[in-house]
Amino acid sequence: MIYLDYNASTPVDARVASLVQEASHAYANPSSTQHRAGQQAAELVEHARQRLATAVHRTPREIVFTAGASEAAAIGIIGAMLGDSRRPNVVIGATEHKAIIQAAEAGARLGGGEVRIASVDHSGLLDLSRLNELVDDSVSVVAVMAANNETGVMGPVEQASVIAHSRGALFFSDITQLLGKGDTTDVSTHADLMVCSSHKLYGPKGAGALIASRHTQKALFPILGGGGQEFGLRGGTSNAPALTGFGLAAELATQCLPETMNRLTVLRDQLWHGLQELGSVEINGGDAPRVCNTLNVRIAGADAEAVMASMPDVAVSSGSACQSAVPTPSHVLLAMGRSTTEAGESLRLSIGTPTTESDIRASIAKLSAAALRVRELTGDLERFLDDA
Amino acid sequence: MIYLDYNASTPVDARVASLVQEASHAYANPSSTQHRAGQQAAELVEHARQRLATAVHRTPREIVFTAGASEAAAIGIIGAMLGDSRRPNVVIGATEHKAIIQAAEAGARLGGGEVRIASVDHSGLLDLSRLNELVDDSVSVVAVMAANNETGVMGPVEQASVIAHSRGALFFSDITQLLGKGDTTDVSTHADLMVCSSHKLYGPKGAGALIASRHTQKALFPILGGGGQEFGLRGGTSNAPALTGFGLAAELATQCLPETMNRLTVLRDQLWHGLQELGSVEINGGDAPRVCNTLNVRIAGADAEAVMASMPDVAVSSGSACQSAVPTPSHVLLAMGRSTTEAGESLRLSIGTPTTESDIRASIAKLSAAALRVRELTGDLERFLDDA
Repeated sequence: MIYLDYNASTPVDARVASLVQEASHAYANPSSTQHRAGQQAAELVEHARQRLATAVHRTPREIVFTAGASEAAAIGIIGAMLGDSRRPNVVIGATEHKAIIQAAEAGARLGGGEVRIASVDHSGLLDLSRLNELVDDSVSVVAVMAANNETGVMGPVEQASVIAHSRGALFFSDITQLLGKGDTTDVSTHADLMVCSSHKLYGPKGAGALIASRHTQKALFPILGGGGQEFGLRGGTSNAPALTGFGLAAELATQCLPETMNRLTVLRDQLWHGLQELGSVEINGGDAPRVCNTLNVRIAGADAEAVMASMPDVAVSSGSACQSAVPTPSHVLLAMGRSTTEAGESLRLSIGTPTTESDIRASIAKLSAAALRVRELTGDLERFLDDA
Repeated sequence: MIYLDYNASTPVDARVASLVQEASHAYANPSSTQHRAGQQAAELVEHARQRLATAVHRTPREIVFTAGASEAAAIGIIGAMLGDSRRPNVVIGATEHKAIIQAAEAGARLGGGEVRIASVDHSGLLDLSRLNELVDDSVSVVAVMAANNETGVMGPVEQASVIAHSRGALFFSDITQLLGKGDTTDVSTHADLMVCSSHKLYGPKGAGALIASRHTQKALFPILGGGGQEFGLRGGTSNAPALTGFGLAAELATQCLPETMNRLTVLRDQLWHGLQELGSVEINGGDAPRVCNTLNVRIAGADAEAVMASMPDVAVSSGSACQSAVPTPSHVLLAMGRSTTEAGESLRLSIGTPTTESDIRASIAKLSAAALRVRELTGDLERFLDDA
């Protein structure tokens, strides 16, 4: 199988897996600080906190560990919206991940506020003048993702944060798809709240983080306070083995960042170059700055579901993993002005550090053959080949 | 080290650890059902769901997987409280786990309701006539735990559920400390909502569940809906490896239940018998039915913190793990009418399937020596030895 769905999830790096294995012997509850076994588990968690903090250019006290980015987003967004009753509203970009949209909707319903959606242009870039109109002093938080999970388009986080801050709102940015694939210095400088996930950067599943200053943490209503762990924001026994793996994965992913970015950019561009032979292909978000590993390609005349069914040994997706089971077109592509048909002809190809040149060559061959088969079956072959 | 803190967390069973290891190769996102790799991960999750369902006497559709019991409690309790605006209030037992109390408080604050606390008697048993007074038709949910994490006292779940249901409220029961250590048939029959956790029954950390019928699930406001996973109640990428381990752990823990219960009861009673030599010792909750592995013992004249400091190679606790870092007396023991001093002289000893008779003998010796040292240092030795 050729796996080109790294934006959905990644395999665990071997060094990380071996550390997780080792850390699982520290099975005591990290909150059991009355005995040495608990203290050892707590030390693992704190070491991981330090590693992640370094990777995201923050201090350990700013890392609130969670079980993943979706949970972190709920704690951050709902928490911010309910933390200030004078600001019940939220503004989010139209292409945010479903977890962000759902958190915003939950927060609005609970606090009696509304979700305001900032539109994006044809390339997926946020309309900053529209954002400027939507943010007023009834808004608690503005969410603009650092890199889109479907297209890889990188959001104008600095400008968006300036708009949010000028109205006294917090600025939230989902860095799940940027961490380990792009420089997070800018977003870390400008965002009040960030979320990320271990299993998107070769760490184990079941670990994520909300990143916020102590001051911002205190402004949040704690919807998941539980037993008081993680500075009162995320209750529940800390998952020391998974967090240990997350810490190392974040360190590894950011240490070799320039090399990774160069290598993945070259491979992704090779993939695009090869697919162009099909004719009538285009990159969704092609005009915008994009993260190095993601290629969302529309192959006109080739329904994406049919293409995927026609190449069972290549793992790609037609949108976000969360939405795979739901036969609706991508809200991200529709927001970018694509028609339902165009969105239905779009595939998300996301590569990762294990991807090789030979994977790319094989993917081009298999994808092209599948797309041609689908075009042929639907009688569209002639039409599109003329284009090539 | 002798570990007697199994109620805080347990080591992972070797068979479970090896299955988790194997399952971690299925790294794709279980929501990525458009390709075989994702389908394989999804199959693991569904198999785990079936295993846990069998262990708790329910159907797979009733299992909502989470990252742990605290998160599950928040989804269940806050969800129930906000799901019906005519019922903003909640009733909980006075000895509930902090995660339940915090969820109830969050739900009350968000919905404009109140948390009503049902008192317990000296033995830790819920006052049912008081419960009856507190539950009216403004109450959405009544929470009474199946087994207390500090004392092991088992709640009168059937009677409490009858009271809840007679007023149209949902009945919630935390079975985290009962599953694998006692029969859950009764609570499963009577509860609308249950929560449990993998790492309390020799499964990996990072897995838990909310258990509720489809009908009850639909009555919940989804505070953590995220990408729509787990029937819209718990968004976020499913942690297939951890859930796989959880499923097997639940199966193993319930398959050998009668043997486990017999063996742990014998060992726990040996421990109690040995400690009685100290004189002036009593079991907190000793008059109530208790889960087989837990002994909460008060050693008069021996401050628990000092005893623990005096035996660094025995891992016990003075209350819930979550509260270890907080130097306040146990709210559970205070609710049972213990004074601050009495609560401060109480130790939670919780044994597990790896515990041996030799562990018990060594624990008695070390605990007794430590308690005598503390009594001696505080000048209370003579007084209490006369009692023995």
